[in-house]
Amino acid sequence: MDHPGRQLKLVQELELHGVSAMLVTHLPNVRYLCGFTGSAGVLAVLVGKGRKPTLVFFTDGRYSEQARNEVRCAKVVIAKGPALASAAEWLAARQQRGMEVGFEAEHMSVASRSALGKVASKLKLRELSQVVERLRMIKEPAEVDHIRAAVLLASSVFEVAKQEIKPGVTESSIAAQIEYMCRRMGAEGMSFDTLVAAGQRSALPHGVASQNLVPDNGFVILDFGVILAGYCSDMTRTVHVGRPDKRALEMYRAVLEAQLAGIDAVRPDVETQKVDFAARKVLAKAGLGRYFTHSTGHGVGIEIHEPPSLRKRGRIPKRTKTSQRANAAIPDRLEPGMVITIEPGVYLPGIGGVRIEDMVLVTENGCEVLTPTGKDLIVI
Amino acid sequence: MDHPGRQLKLVQELELHGVSAMLVTHLPNVRYLCGFTGSAGVLAVLVGKGRKPTLVFFTDGRYSEQARNEVRCAKVVIAKGPALASAAEWLAARQQRGMEVGFEAEHMSVASRSALGKVASKLKLRELSQVVERLRMIKEPAEVDHIRAAVLLASSVFEVAKQEIKPGVTESSIAAQIEYMCRRMGAEGMSFDTLVAAGQRSALPHGVASQNLVPDNGFVILDFGVILAGYCSDMTRTVHVGRPDKRALEMYRAVLEAQLAGIDAVRPDVETQKVDFAARKVLAKAGLGRYFTHSTGHGVGIEIHEPPSLRKRGRIPKRTKTSQRANAAIPDRLEPGMVITIEPGVYLPGIGGVRIEDMVLVTENGCEVLTPTGKDLIVI
Repeated sequence: MDHPGRQLKLVQELELHGVSAMLVTHLPNVRYLCGFTGSAGVLAVLVGKGRKPTLVFFTDGRYSEQARNEVRCAKVVIAKGPALASAAEWLAARQQRGMEVGFEAEHMSVASRSALGKVASKLKLRELSQVVERLRMIKEPAEVDHIRAAVLLASSVFEVAKQEIKPGVTESSIAAQIEYMCRRMGAEGMSFDTLVAAGQRSALPHGVASQNLVPDNGFVILDFGVILAGYCSDMTRTVHVGRPDKRALEMYRAVLEAQLAGIDAVRPDVETQKVDFAARKVLAKAGLGRYFTHSTGHGVGIEIHEPPSLRKRGRIPKRTKTSQRANAAIPDRLEPGMVITIEPGVYLPGIGGVRIEDMVLVTENGCEVLTPTGKDLIVI
Repeated sequence: MDHPGRQLKLVQELELHGVSAMLVTHLPNVRYLCGFTGSAGVLAVLVGKGRKPTLVFFTDGRYSEQARNEVRCAKVVIAKGPALASAAEWLAARQQRGMEVGFEAEHMSVASRSALGKVASKLKLRELSQVVERLRMIKEPAEVDHIRAAVLLASSVFEVAKQEIKPGVTESSIAAQIEYMCRRMGAEGMSFDTLVAAGQRSALPHGVASQNLVPDNGFVILDFGVILAGYCSDMTRTVHVGRPDKRALEMYRAVLEAQLAGIDAVRPDVETQKVDFAARKVLAKAGLGRYFTHSTGHGVGIEIHEPPSLRKRGRIPKRTKTSQRANAAIPDRLEPGMVITIEPGVYLPGIGGVRIEDMVLVTENGCEVLTPTGKDLIVI
């Protein structure tokens, strides 16, 4: 992993924002910048004028050994009190006239912000938005390799897991099998609570596996992913138990067509909302538009949900020059190296639902579907 | 679950704080107050003067069916945009002169706070700290039943899991077995990433299961818990593979003695830091004080880490009257109905570590250890 390169890019971003220091509190961002995988710690970044930047990672006594083993290109300090307070005090001691310290406004609570104001009242703090997330959107080749491995692991588990689906089996036991196989194949964990939603419950777009039984006839949605070397995967397939009726076949066909249309729209420089629209249009045409109640996809990487989001936006900003980028939100257009999901779905309350989800890498010329699993309707 | 009773207590707390409305954004708190178990939603509470309070739960289209099924004693609104903005607008439309709206300062990001200021600029917002958490600390009998069931499930899995521990087995495969058995026995999920730390890695207080192998001789720490009906359990046992040497036996004996001393100190009205001190004193006496690098325990319930925290405090506040409680932090004393962990540990870098953890219910007269698993050193 290219920690020095990432740190350098961060420093450039901070210079664009006109801040000379930053408190990184969001743990996936901390991990990205210095490699620490534990669950408590803060990274302080100080951009010296004409000097090399200084990075110091603050954590507590539970993580002293782990931090020493993991942290790259940053000094490690084991704080006696809260890591955030120590990091802020460290920066305050280096405060210079006019120095502003950026912090992650999405990842600092109002309470922490208030506390900071007390422990380091000298610090001039500035809200920053998704500065590190913006870097993380574009994956390094090594990151794509990790994601690819996570995708393949989950796909191979699906091939076995689908054999567990039969009438009378609980959703939970299918989830248990999936998670066990993932673990046995080396997954560090699941990317999120495994969703298994059978029969009428398949109409829940976010149906965590329950004690509900697979019925004799109906859809079963499986949505799961694994974490491998810190990177997530995400996939959804919908199978049908028993003979599907005409409506079920039409639903499935429409969702599949929408999913393929979404993938077809993925290429560099396309607006993210256009990908969403491409999938949505197909479902609208099939008369199912109002049952597609979520966005078409999201970025995946160290976190299961990352920017960009593939959804309808209020406005489409013009492309900004680098000099203006500092104040721009996450870009609204796809770029090579992004890894996203394409996952339209329809959900008919009281009846059932269908969702199909692949992971897709944006390439220089278009895209590559990372998920190898077939998408023809499986009837059990 | 007594949702009306909880809502009534919340209203009383809000009156003590002098606010006439509240935005509840922390999902475990939302669940506690109205039963919603999904992953997006905001509860708006409006305390009418002399009228019944009005509770409205805002979520998005993905959760419309789930919200209808789950939400108790609150109106459900499916918002078109972000739930928080909708909830704030709803309150703003009911704004009266002098009305202040409390929000959860620990559970609202600075970015969300800024956004709120824009969508509902009329609202006079006030930071509140752990108002619902304070209610959640004292468990209802039905909640204790759920916790008890979660504890027993994990304990019974431990009896089987310990047989999986042998030299040459990966930590991950032990974790996989544990998680699979928990799922098969009906767990909705694990309370946290299962910790299995073998040999030198047992010196990591927070060692998530890795590809590391169980050595021929050394400690293995297992720390895991399950979620059942929304309530968490948490347990740790340390076993020894191969014949333990004198130092290992002394470490284990000291930690066990510290753990028993901690439990012995648990009773209503005792300061939480006194429980911490009781355990810490034993380890200090054994010359291991500086290797006990974390707090002695924490509350457990809907979340795996809840107040109270059993740690050294900077100050011991005098007991406060009800009228002063509004501005007090989480009480520093144990009360009947609290469920806490007692989990001292020692960690010798490069050598290994020991931790022993039970869950304990504070009763009217003392406490009840909920975890039935034995604590004599298991040698494998």
